[in-house]
Amino acid sequence: MTLRIGILVFDDAEELDFVGPWEVFTMANEMAKRMGREAPHAVRLVAERDAPVRCAKGMRVLPDTTTGQCGALDVLLVPGGQGTRREVNNTALLEWIAATAATATWTTSVCTGALLLTAAGPAKGKRVTTHWAFVETLRARNEASEVVANYRYVRDGNIVTAAGVSAGIDMALWLVGEWHGADFARTVQRGMEYDPAPPYQGLT
Amino acid sequence: MTLRIGILVFDDAEELDFVGPWEVFTMANEMAKRMGREAPHAVRLVAERDAPVRCAKGMRVLPDTTTGQCGALDVLLVPGGQGTRREVNNTALLEWIAATAATATWTTSVCTGALLLTAAGPAKGKRVTTHWAFVETLRARNEASEVVANYRYVRDGNIVTAAGVSAGIDMALWLVGEWHGADFARTVQRGMEYDPAPPYQGLT
Repeated sequence: MTLRIGILVFDDAEELDFVGPWEVFTMANEMAKRMGREAPHAVRLVAERDAPVRCAKGMRVLPDTTTGQCGALDVLLVPGGQGTRREVNNTALLEWIAATAATATWTTSVCTGALLLTAAGPAKGKRVTTHWAFVETLRARNEASEVVANYRYVRDGNIVTAAGVSAGIDMALWLVGEWHGADFARTVQRGMEYDPAPPYQGLT
Repeated sequence: MTLRIGILVFDDAEELDFVGPWEVFTMANEMAKRMGREAPHAVRLVAERDAPVRCAKGMRVLPDTTTGQCGALDVLLVPGGQGTRREVNNTALLEWIAATAATATWTTSVCTGALLLTAAGPAKGKRVTTHWAFVETLRARNEASEVVANYRYVRDGNIVTAAGVSAGIDMALWLVGEWHGADFARTVQRGMEYDPAPPYQGLT
């Protein structure tokens, strides 16, 4: 069965927050194809309107569908970025996130996307993580039961939240392993040549 | 002085190949702004035509400028992806790459983008790397002096080539360190929370 994966995009969403997981989920399709298997994922960018989205750092992407038209999802992914500070007051979008999460198997976020998951409801009372620089702000909102720092991703039931920006790649690979097994996820990781070597060691 | 960075995009370019470095170069602007400094980079997506580009895994992006209009660049980055197999026969594009590289301070590629740099000329006779699965194919073309495997990025003079897909992030951070110093590059790395933890260890 093909998993219906919706990746939310909005103005000022952070580019790598959503393109990292996009690459993981779609590379899984490519690897499956090469193995003679059916594509395991139907991955779409979902926006409120059918119009170009201008991301946080200026990249413009076209959504594949809209919140009104995309229908039920098996997996929802909400990226972060400066735009979350505006969207957290967008009642219509929060209601869509809550309704979509209610029937999704997995609801996930990257970076400050956790803010939208706690505000909208799905991550209320859950243990979550977010970008390191946003941990205290999210704690102060008192919506999550706990906001942990220094983990790449945190699972609480069917809610999975990733740390800042690049952490979405790690979370997405972990999800692929949960869904399709470790051997297949390793193949996807290898397809992306994801054997990272940050030039600067340690983040502090 | 602001570095003019052009990231080439074409149909079937691999999404993370160019969005990884885009995130690094533009996060550098964000970090500089927060430190009260001028943005060090003017980063643009460059395509042959002013029309949406459909990437290898289906994401559609809008270019910021065209090869005809973008003018001289300080840094050229050429991504890989299935589209390189078509573009390697696109004489007009190869000529643009050669002309742009001739006046650029740095000419770089990610993944199979190395194929376009060797075919176009800038990386002919140079030591390069590429996606692990493409190393033998690139060697067989006898254009590079050497095609090395198992390095995240390789510098030969002002040509820097990265390994597959995710390796562009490591290369871009290294470039930021070369241009602006290690302390600043570390700040950019921290802004992206780039402390990766691939769920599956080792690529073999």
